[in-house]
Amino acid sequence: MRGVSKDGHGLSWFETAQVRLLTMRVDFPGDGARLGLEPPVKLASNSAAVCQVRGPGMTYCCGVLVRDGLVMIADTRTNAGLDNVSTFRKLHIFSKPGERIMAIASAGNLAISQSVLSTLTEGLEDPHTGEIETLLNAPTMFQAAQRIGRAIRAVHATEGVALQSEDINFDVSFLFGGQIKGSRMRLFMVYPAGNFIECTTDTPYLQIGEHKYGKPVLDRAMHYDVELYEALKTSLISMDSTMRSNLGVGLPIDVLIVRTDVCDADLNHRIEAGEPYYHDLRSRWSAALRAAHQNIPRPPYKTETQSKS
Amino acid sequence: MRGVSKDGHGLSWFETAQVRLLTMRVDFPGDGARLGLEPPVKLASNSAAVCQVRGPGMTYCCGVLVRDGLVMIADTRTNAGLDNVSTFRKLHIFSKPGERIMAIASAGNLAISQSVLSTLTEGLEDPHTGEIETLLNAPTMFQAAQRIGRAIRAVHATEGVALQSEDINFDVSFLFGGQIKGSRMRLFMVYPAGNFIECTTDTPYLQIGEHKYGKPVLDRAMHYDVELYEALKTSLISMDSTMRSNLGVGLPIDVLIVRTDVCDADLNHRIEAGEPYYHDLRSRWSAALRAAHQNIPRPPYKTETQSKS
Repeated sequence: MRGVSKDGHGLSWFETAQVRLLTMRVDFPGDGARLGLEPPVKLASNSAAVCQVRGPGMTYCCGVLVRDGLVMIADTRTNAGLDNVSTFRKLHIFSKPGERIMAIASAGNLAISQSVLSTLTEGLEDPHTGEIETLLNAPTMFQAAQRIGRAIRAVHATEGVALQSEDINFDVSFLFGGQIKGSRMRLFMVYPAGNFIECTTDTPYLQIGEHKYGKPVLDRAMHYDVELYEALKTSLISMDSTMRSNLGVGLPIDVLIVRTDVCDADLNHRIEAGEPYYHDLRSRWSAALRAAHQNIPRPPYKTETQSKS
Repeated sequence: MRGVSKDGHGLSWFETAQVRLLTMRVDFPGDGARLGLEPPVKLASNSAAVCQVRGPGMTYCCGVLVRDGLVMIADTRTNAGLDNVSTFRKLHIFSKPGERIMAIASAGNLAISQSVLSTLTEGLEDPHTGEIETLLNAPTMFQAAQRIGRAIRAVHATEGVALQSEDINFDVSFLFGGQIKGSRMRLFMVYPAGNFIECTTDTPYLQIGEHKYGKPVLDRAMHYDVELYEALKTSLISMDSTMRSNLGVGLPIDVLIVRTDVCDADLNHRIEAGEPYYHDLRSRWSAALRAAHQNIPRPPYKTETQSKS
């Protein structure tokens, strides 16, 4: 089979075929996984039938762990093809104020990520003790992250074969951050296999979904000693860069800020379209980039080779 | 099969497996396509055995078509896994000064892109007239682009089955730009299937390879009326953003500038590591981004919810 172009340019049959492919591969929760054959897929007016297209690039979530605390942001755009776009919350908060606060941001197939969250909320039975394990009764953040992994594997065990038979990847990933009183604040990224990595001070952020457009600004501006709301500002610029380049990422944006050792949300906010601060941030960033660009001198190479032409 | 994480973070077995996959899938030109089994792949000391890893993200080329002319830039990093990195020219110029100038930038599997270029240089026989068709005797830029497509299909016909049997995608793409005296300057992007799109004034640039990191600055700063060397400057900033985030893209950078209706290179230059102008551009851009970031006010949300915490 010949390769398929990865970019969004173009009007050729090749791109059309690609869009059709994206449109076709949607899930119908409650009715198993289906692969439609005629684009555009006709979905029932049931909003639960709106699912994320598989593959990367249709969500952007970013978690930042700095000395002062934790920032997590997530967009809310969900789609089952360009002709079916909806708003679903991807940032979920679990807390007992003052004792623990945990947040999960999800990317990937919405049917899978919702099933994982429901499994975690209902709890998983420990095979040895019979105890029902949830995030809220996990002894440590590490064990809570393991429980997310176990929930992913449980959903995979239930859904994986049926999805595979319909050629649907088991595509899901999570950011998981928070703090339990008496332990340190931690941030993890959990993979589709249920394994995970932890954020460290060298690179104090993790991303899931469409991560590339928004990474350069994080690489340049984010470090462990950044003030907490400055870290939010950088994350919002990163989100802006992503939204400008990928229509699959969009407003509103959910924001959680947790200050170290408080074990409660310092900020739990939704940025809606047209909000003055975010609108101003986007305008200022654009204007500053234009100015920065103008202030760089013109390349001098022509002078070197002037004699040639 | 479970999904594979698309990002470069992480030290888990999942990432290790991914890197191994990248390392394994290399081509050995002159010996057919092989899929090694033991990482790291041991390549012969023959430099021709150094090939690009398949898949996107290991090259960055950008073409810009503005009123004043054409800019094409390409990095030169080529790799067969992280343990085998080399420098290969990806920007190739075909010209009869004053009569025509054409340039091809390539991304993808190096064995394939080199075969396509060699096929074009040797020429393809027209089945009806018996004429040997090359880029330099193409009547129009459109027909020249069609010849690139035909060369890709010829290489696919020869190599495709053997590559497929080794599970190697036919991964190659080209930017093709230039002008023939008496016609307008044109810029195309040619896909692995040999079909192509043409750059227009609305979005006056095309990219191949690792295009995401460098796209935001193009989207913000590039338009059809930008001066030619300003367009080069923006392209170099775009290249800088890409190189900072993807080790698969690296210096030196090849640059071609063609002024409209001149049909000769205005600039044919290689930017080497440590070159003062490019070094200065990178420093200024970084400093300007930091300043832009600092000049955006801190998010005001905390004030709104101050009563809460």
